[in-house]
Amino acid sequence: MMRIDIISAVPDSLLSPLNTSIVKRAQDKNKVEIFVHNLRDYAFDKHKQIDDKPFGGGPGMLLKPEPFFDCIEKLTSERDYDHIIITIPKGKIYDQKTANKFSLAKNIIILAGHYKGIDDRVRVKFATDEISIGNFVLSGGELPALIIADSIVRLIPGVLNDSESALNDSFMDGDYIEAPYYTRPAEYRGMKVPEVLLSGNEKKIKEWRSEQSKIMTENWKNINSTE
Amino acid sequence: MMRIDIISAVPDSLLSPLNTSIVKRAQDKNKVEIFVHNLRDYAFDKHKQIDDKPFGGGPGMLLKPEPFFDCIEKLTSERDYDHIIITIPKGKIYDQKTANKFSLAKNIIILAGHYKGIDDRVRVKFATDEISIGNFVLSGGELPALIIADSIVRLIPGVLNDSESALNDSFMDGDYIEAPYYTRPAEYRGMKVPEVLLSGNEKKIKEWRSEQSKIMTENWKNINSTE
Repeated sequence: MMRIDIISAVPDSLLSPLNTSIVKRAQDKNKVEIFVHNLRDYAFDKHKQIDDKPFGGGPGMLLKPEPFFDCIEKLTSERDYDHIIITIPKGKIYDQKTANKFSLAKNIIILAGHYKGIDDRVRVKFATDEISIGNFVLSGGELPALIIADSIVRLIPGVLNDSESALNDSFMDGDYIEAPYYTRPAEYRGMKVPEVLLSGNEKKIKEWRSEQSKIMTENWKNINSTE
Repeated sequence: MMRIDIISAVPDSLLSPLNTSIVKRAQDKNKVEIFVHNLRDYAFDKHKQIDDKPFGGGPGMLLKPEPFFDCIEKLTSERDYDHIIITIPKGKIYDQKTANKFSLAKNIIILAGHYKGIDDRVRVKFATDEISIGNFVLSGGELPALIIADSIVRLIPGVLNDSESALNDSFMDGDYIEAPYYTRPAEYRGMKVPEVLLSGNEKKIKEWRSEQSKIMTENWKNINSTE
């Protein structure tokens, strides 16, 4: 069974996404264990302080190194970890290739930053993978940690059932966008589902989807080419 | 006050991130109202069915169009919306520029897909913005919706206090990665904070940070250049 440990200064924020939908089901099926560690439990002073001002000045508070060191060293003394992932703006932009790689691991730690970030010595000492979810500013690494967990968990064999097979999802195979999908009713508010999808002609449906997919992938590349 | 409406098939998954940290505080300060709508409340049959098989076959279930139409039309009949955002793989990759744009809006709807996605007529009829968080496969659009909400909310004037000023965060100003940050102790486990940060010399600290930032931004660009 895969094990994912997430270390966070605001662990409560992680609860509902980890306890719903496919991530919940994967835990119920014993395909993955996910543990959330409250950084504050590893604070060593009586005020349970986990943040402090940055050396050299500047706005914002920084997460102190000691609680991370203590929590990570406790975990790594108990078992070997394949990846210790830090969510950080300067990291490699997350993509499906990286998700596929992580999904092969047995044990993973994810460090979620918060406030102004984590004292950089934590990264230097422990991080095997520095990951950014994208070029935008968030309140913390909690949502990125959840994204990494979700994307990994659904790749574990046996988590998705056959009818949910992930193999033809967009991005599963490099830059590839799926054709549009429609369900009943065939006509709704004057908007009709493309004829071919109602034809029952498997060959034509496959051709149409492949054609649409090609157009949409090109379009996607154009939208997202560097401006 | 800004208003964000999120429509989802698994609304419970959204709760904890919306009720912690800065997003919670922004609501407490009356800077934003966030409403989560359960798609199932807009199902019209007695089984509360919100998904169905795709026309033309293929694995996975699709979210039906009618509940989205009904929910969105109810909302748009009550007030004007600046953006109706759909989270979708083929969308424009989310970035800080788009977050900045959204943060200027008064009312926003975010549609979260789930399962195999949403009947494409919903996108065609309503979506003003098609957004992808990145090139990876997730169980649904809930985490992307939360990322969009978090990134917007923290930009609303008065949400962050002065000491959290977002202005010098990474990515706030295009491709720009911040210098590393450190807090006490100045030496920990043999790892020392760079001398200059302890010097009290503001000019030198500024130069060092600017230099580090330059190196790290270059490095980040190299890591993330198309392979």
